[in-house]
Amino acid sequence: MDAYQQLKAVFRRLAHLRHVSAICHWDEAVMMPPGGGQARAEALAGLHALQHEILIDPSVKQWLDDAQSKQQNSAWDQANLQWMEQEYLKAGCLPTDLVQRSQLAFIRCEQAWRTLRAENNWREFAPLLSENIAFVKEIAQIKSSVLGVSPYDSLIDQFSPGLSQAVIDPIFNQLKLFLPDFIHRAMAKQSSPQSIQGCFPVDKQRELGLQLMLAIGFDFNHGRLDVSHHPFCGGVPQDVRITTRYVEHEFVSASMGVCHETGHALYERGLPADWWDQPVGESLGMAVHESQSLLIEMQACRSREFMQFFSSLVKEFFGELPNFSPENLYHHYTTVKPGLIRVDADEVSYPLHVILRYELEKKLIAGEIHCDDLPELWDGYMQAFFKLSTRGNDRNGVMQDVHWPSGAFGYFPAYTIGAIIAAQLFQAAKKRYPEILSQISRGQFTSLVAWLRENIHSRGRLLSMNELLQQATGQPLTVDFFIAHLQQRYA
Amino acid sequence: MDAYQQLKAVFRRLAHLRHVSAICHWDEAVMMPPGGGQARAEALAGLHALQHEILIDPSVKQWLDDAQSKQQNSAWDQANLQWMEQEYLKAGCLPTDLVQRSQLAFIRCEQAWRTLRAENNWREFAPLLSENIAFVKEIAQIKSSVLGVSPYDSLIDQFSPGLSQAVIDPIFNQLKLFLPDFIHRAMAKQSSPQSIQGCFPVDKQRELGLQLMLAIGFDFNHGRLDVSHHPFCGGVPQDVRITTRYVEHEFVSASMGVCHETGHALYERGLPADWWDQPVGESLGMAVHESQSLLIEMQACRSREFMQFFSSLVKEFFGELPNFSPENLYHHYTTVKPGLIRVDADEVSYPLHVILRYELEKKLIAGEIHCDDLPELWDGYMQAFFKLSTRGNDRNGVMQDVHWPSGAFGYFPAYTIGAIIAAQLFQAAKKRYPEILSQISRGQFTSLVAWLRENIHSRGRLLSMNELLQQATGQPLTVDFFIAHLQQRYA
Repeated sequence: MDAYQQLKAVFRRLAHLRHVSAICHWDEAVMMPPGGGQARAEALAGLHALQHEILIDPSVKQWLDDAQSKQQNSAWDQANLQWMEQEYLKAGCLPTDLVQRSQLAFIRCEQAWRTLRAENNWREFAPLLSENIAFVKEIAQIKSSVLGVSPYDSLIDQFSPGLSQAVIDPIFNQLKLFLPDFIHRAMAKQSSPQSIQGCFPVDKQRELGLQLMLAIGFDFNHGRLDVSHHPFCGGVPQDVRITTRYVEHEFVSASMGVCHETGHALYERGLPADWWDQPVGESLGMAVHESQSLLIEMQACRSREFMQFFSSLVKEFFGELPNFSPENLYHHYTTVKPGLIRVDADEVSYPLHVILRYELEKKLIAGEIHCDDLPELWDGYMQAFFKLSTRGNDRNGVMQDVHWPSGAFGYFPAYTIGAIIAAQLFQAAKKRYPEILSQISRGQFTSLVAWLRENIHSRGRLLSMNELLQQATGQPLTVDFFIAHLQQRYA
Repeated sequence: MDAYQQLKAVFRRLAHLRHVSAICHWDEAVMMPPGGGQARAEALAGLHALQHEILIDPSVKQWLDDAQSKQQNSAWDQANLQWMEQEYLKAGCLPTDLVQRSQLAFIRCEQAWRTLRAENNWREFAPLLSENIAFVKEIAQIKSSVLGVSPYDSLIDQFSPGLSQAVIDPIFNQLKLFLPDFIHRAMAKQSSPQSIQGCFPVDKQRELGLQLMLAIGFDFNHGRLDVSHHPFCGGVPQDVRITTRYVEHEFVSASMGVCHETGHALYERGLPADWWDQPVGESLGMAVHESQSLLIEMQACRSREFMQFFSSLVKEFFGELPNFSPENLYHHYTTVKPGLIRVDADEVSYPLHVILRYELEKKLIAGEIHCDDLPELWDGYMQAFFKLSTRGNDRNGVMQDVHWPSGAFGYFPAYTIGAIIAAQLFQAAKKRYPEILSQISRGQFTSLVAWLRENIHSRGRLLSMNELLQQATGQPLTVDFFIAHLQQRYA
C-alpha cells in the first residue's frame, strides 16, 4: 500500500470509531437510563482519546509527508488528502490527556445540566460550566498558536471550517443594526392569529411528524425518529437519527422541529457514498448543516405554499377546524414575537439570540469576562435586544442551551450564517426549478431535494464553503437574500 | 506507573471499547433501521479488530512479563493479572486480519439470517453459514495449537472458561440415557391444563413484565426492557439492557423470557463495581451466566410458590379468570411437551436440544460433517430424540438459533451446564435461607438475590468455576441436583 492508501485505512478506522461514538451519543440522549451516565461518559471520553491517539500517530505524519509528494488520482483524492492534513494538524497539537479530560468534563457537565437546568440551579451549574470554559480556553490557546488564527477563530473553525470572525463580524453588525427596528415594524404590522391550542396526543403528533418526514424525503430504511430532551440529528449517513420533543397543548414546535431535523438528515444521507469513510465525504461543517435544516424549516416549511399541504395534514390528524386554515397556520408560523428561548424564537428575532451568544463567547475566550458574569450580561443583552429580563430565571437564560454544557463553544454563529446561506440557496434553487413552491404546496419536495442533492449534499467536502456557494448560486456568501427574504415575508 | 498499572490502563481502554461495542450491538438488534446494517457490521468489525490490536501490542507482552515477576497487592490483583495473561494468550495467536474478516462475516450472516430464517431459505443461508464455519474452524485450529487443547475445547473455553468436553461428555451422556425415558414417564403422568390462551395486548404484557422485573430486583436506574427478534441480555453492568418478544395470544413465553433475562441482568449488575473495567470484574462466562438466568427462570419462577404471586399479577392485568389459578398456571409452566424450538422447550426436553447442537458442533469442527449435511442430521436427531421431523422446515430446524449465524460455536453447552449449576446453587441457597420459597410466593426475592450477590455475582472472576461452586455449595459441579430437581417436579 502506498502512503495515501495507508492514510485511507487510518481514516476508515477513525470513521468506524466515529460511527460507534455517534450511535452511543444518540443512545445517551435518547435511550440510556440515568444511572448509566457516568460509565458512558468515561467510555466516550476514552474512545475520543483513542481516536486522537490514532490520528496523531507518528506514522500518520510520515504518510502525509510521503503522500504530499505525489499527485493524487482525482480532485476528490486531492481534497481528501488536504482534509487529512488539516485534521492531523488540528489534533496533533493537543495532548491526548487534555482531550480525554476535557471530553469527560463536557459529557459530565451535559449530564448534570439536564437536572440542574430543570431546577434553575445556576449555583451548582456554574463551577461545572467554568471548568468547561477553562478547558475550551486551553484548547483554543494551543490551536491558535499552531494554526496562526485567533483562539476564538480556532473554535469556530472546529465546527464550521471556512468561517471566522472576519466573515461573521460585518454580517452580524449589519443584522444588529437592521433587526431591532425591523422587529418593531413587523410586530406593528401583524395581527393576532386565531388560537390553535388544544389537546394533541403525543402519538398523533408523532404520526404527523412521520408524514412530514416522508413528504420531505426522509429515508426510513436508513433512519429513525425519536424523542429527546433537546432535538438533534445524530447517527451516521447510513443510519440518520433525528429527535424531537412534544407538548400536548400545541403541535407547532414538534412539527417544525421535525422539519428542521429532517433538513439535517437529508444532508447526512445525501453525502457521497463512495467517500463515507473518508474526511472528504463528511459534511462541510455546521454552518452549511444549519443551512440545510433552515432551508427546509424556514424557507420551505414556513412558506405560504407549504401551509396548503400542512393544513390538510393537520385537519386529517386533528379535525376540520376553521383555525387550521392555511392562512391561519401561516400566521402562526410567521408571527414575530421576541421571547427568552432561542429554539422557540421566530425567524426574525433568532439572529439576535445568536449574536448575544457570539459576543459573550468572544469575550469569554478572550478572558474579558468570566463564567460568573454570564447571568447578568445575559440579562443585559435580553433587555437591550428585546426588553425582556432573565434575572433569577437562568434556566431560560444562560442555562437554556445544550451547547456550552457540552463544551461546544464556537458553534452558535453557524445558526445565523446557516440561515443566510439557506436564503441564498433557496433563491438559486427556485431559479433553477421554478416549480419548487407549487410542488411544496402539494407536499412534494422532489425538485428541491434533487437540487440540494446535486449542488450541496453530494459534494461532501470537495469544495470550500465559499466555492460551494459560488458554484451553487453564482456568488459568494451574502446576507442580501436573507434580508430580502425577511422583508418579503414580514414587512 | 509500574507494569501492572500500565496493564490496568490498557484493559480500562479495552473496557471502554467493550462498552461502546455492547451498546452498538444492542442497538443493532433493537433500534437500528435495516438499511444501517452494512455500515454497522463494518464499524463493529473494525472496532473488534482494533480491540484485538490493542491487546496484542508488544508492550502488553513486555508488561505482562514484568508484572509476573512481582507479587501483586491482593488476590484480586493476582487473579486480574492471570486473566490478562489468558486474554493476551488467546488473542495474541490470531492475526488481526482474520479477526476483522471473521467478525464482518458473522455480523453480516446474522443480519441476513433474520430475513432468510423468516423465509425458510436454507439454500441462500447455507453459503453464509458455511463461511462462518470455515472462519471458526480456522480460529479454533490456531487456538488449539497455542493453548494445547482440542480445537472444539478452545471454542467452548472462549464462552465458558473452565468448561471442556472432558467435563461435558460424561454429564451429557448421562442425560442422554436418562432423559428420553424420563420424558415419556413425565408425559404419561401429566394431565392437560385448562387453556389460558386469549388476547393479551402487548402493552399490558410489557407492563406485566416490568412488574416481574421489579419484584425480582431489576434496577431500572441502570437498565431497560425492550423488544428484539431473539431475547437477550446486553449492555454493560452500569446499564443492563434486556429484551423479550411478544405474541398477543399468550403471555407465557414473554413473561418467562423476562424472568430469564432478568437473571442474567442481576448477574451483570452485581459484578464487583471496583473491578468493572478489569478482566477480573467480568462475569465468569456463559455457563455461570446461564445458571443465573435459569436459576431465576426455572428454579424460582416455575416453582409452585412463584405461581401464587404470578397468578395474582396475571389476574390484576388480565382479569379474574379461574384458569389463571396458581395451580393451572403451574401446570402450564411445567408441562412436558417436546417440540421443534429450543427456546420454547420445557425444562426436561431442553438438554436434548443442547446435546443435538453440541454433537453437531463437535463433528463440524472436527471436519467429520459439513454445513450441507446439517439439515438432514438435524432431522435425524429430532426423530431420534422426540419423534419429530424438521424435514423441509429448516426455519424451525437448523436455522432457528442466532448462535451459528453470529459465529458463536461452542456456546450451547453453557445452557445445560448452566441449568445443572442452577439446581446445585438453588439447593444451597435454600439451605442457607430456608425462607426463600415462602418469600417468592409473596413476590419477594430479597434473600435469594442476597445469596446470589454474595456467593456468585460479587465474585466476578476471582475464582474458577469449580472453586466458585465449591465455595458456594460445598461441592464441585455435579448433575445430581438437576436430576433430583427434575424428578421432584416431574415424576
